[in-house]
Amino acid sequence: MKPSAKISLPPGNMLNPLPVVMVSCGSIPDDYNIITVAWCGTICSEPPMCYVSIRRERHSYDLVKKYKEFVINLCTQELCAITDWCGVRSGRKYNKFQLMNITAMAAEKVKAPLIAESPLNIECIVKEIISLGSHDMFIAEVVAVHADEKLLDPKTQALRLDKADLVSYSHGNYYSLGEKIGKFGFSVQKKTSKKK
Amino acid sequence: MKPSAKISLPPGNMLNPLPVVMVSCGSIPDDYNIITVAWCGTICSEPPMCYVSIRRERHSYDLVKKYKEFVINLCTQELCAITDWCGVRSGRKYNKFQLMNITAMAAEKVKAPLIAESPLNIECIVKEIISLGSHDMFIAEVVAVHADEKLLDPKTQALRLDKADLVSYSHGNYYSLGEKIGKFGFSVQKKTSKKK
Repeated sequence: MKPSAKISLPPGNMLNPLPVVMVSCGSIPDDYNIITVAWCGTICSEPPMCYVSIRRERHSYDLVKKYKEFVINLCTQELCAITDWCGVRSGRKYNKFQLMNITAMAAEKVKAPLIAESPLNIECIVKEIISLGSHDMFIAEVVAVHADEKLLDPKTQALRLDKADLVSYSHGNYYSLGEKIGKFGFSVQKKTSKKK
Repeated sequence: MKPSAKISLPPGNMLNPLPVVMVSCGSIPDDYNIITVAWCGTICSEPPMCYVSIRRERHSYDLVKKYKEFVINLCTQELCAITDWCGVRSGRKYNKFQLMNITAMAAEKVKAPLIAESPLNIECIVKEIISLGSHDMFIAEVVAVHADEKLLDPKTQALRLDKADLVSYSHGNYYSLGEKIGKFGFSVQKKTSKKK
């Protein structure tokens, strides 16, 4: 592989591709809201922890700060237009659940609702809020996870998240996941794998 | 869209898909190392900030903690096996640059090297280290970005990151990016766009 010449770009957020998820928040149906974020990620394995970063001006910022809870709902190809819409419209003006015709479902450990149509929902409790510049980072612990039962392999009961048609976000565009290149560890398995 | 029945899974890190990147660190060729991480993300827009989370036992943990600098190098289909290898092998045992036959290139603002073969390199300076459980989160500011000059559109000089064949990581597997579903905002453009 030959390295090629580099050009410098202004410092910016060029980490790609990213997750893109609907974060549901609020504590009663009247204040339920959804904000779409790509500034989110996993930050710790044990305990399982993740974060979402939200601009202070956003309607959901106040809800997450007040209740210290939220749910991450993964995005699929089928949910992509709804996810996009929830990212460009404000909950101050619109009841997003109603307008998008999606279902708020009771969570197990938090008052924020699950989005029932999402194939995987992650209930989170905020542990710490870190003020950065434009965004505050909500550091949270994962307290419950729910999956569409259709994603369970009927024989093994293993979660087949590869069947969920998840969506990735890169440089301002939404993409389906394409070809599987390999499983974690494939680079060393190639040389050694001769299973009996 | 019909919501389907849910099953509960143990609390875990189910946010998917994620980025997967090679993080280069160290300050002189003798201690240069690479660690592959998926626990990484963007946390603030202004100033541009991102994080990587690293287990304290990892060789790169000490390097990033000592020098408070690292470079994020995006992964492509061509770099995927190398990225995987750098995630399963330790820099305590192997000189990863040498063994993977990749090129350490001088960065602009940090002493950690760029991986020349990666299409996009993000120089980062650590601002804060947050101890969670198994992982520490290195919160960093982006101080410089470099791109393969072949990714610039010859006419507009715009960055065509869609030409970089980036890789996404989901539930333990590496995937190419597939079909473009839409651009951020497409859900509202569909209704209103009638350009003159």
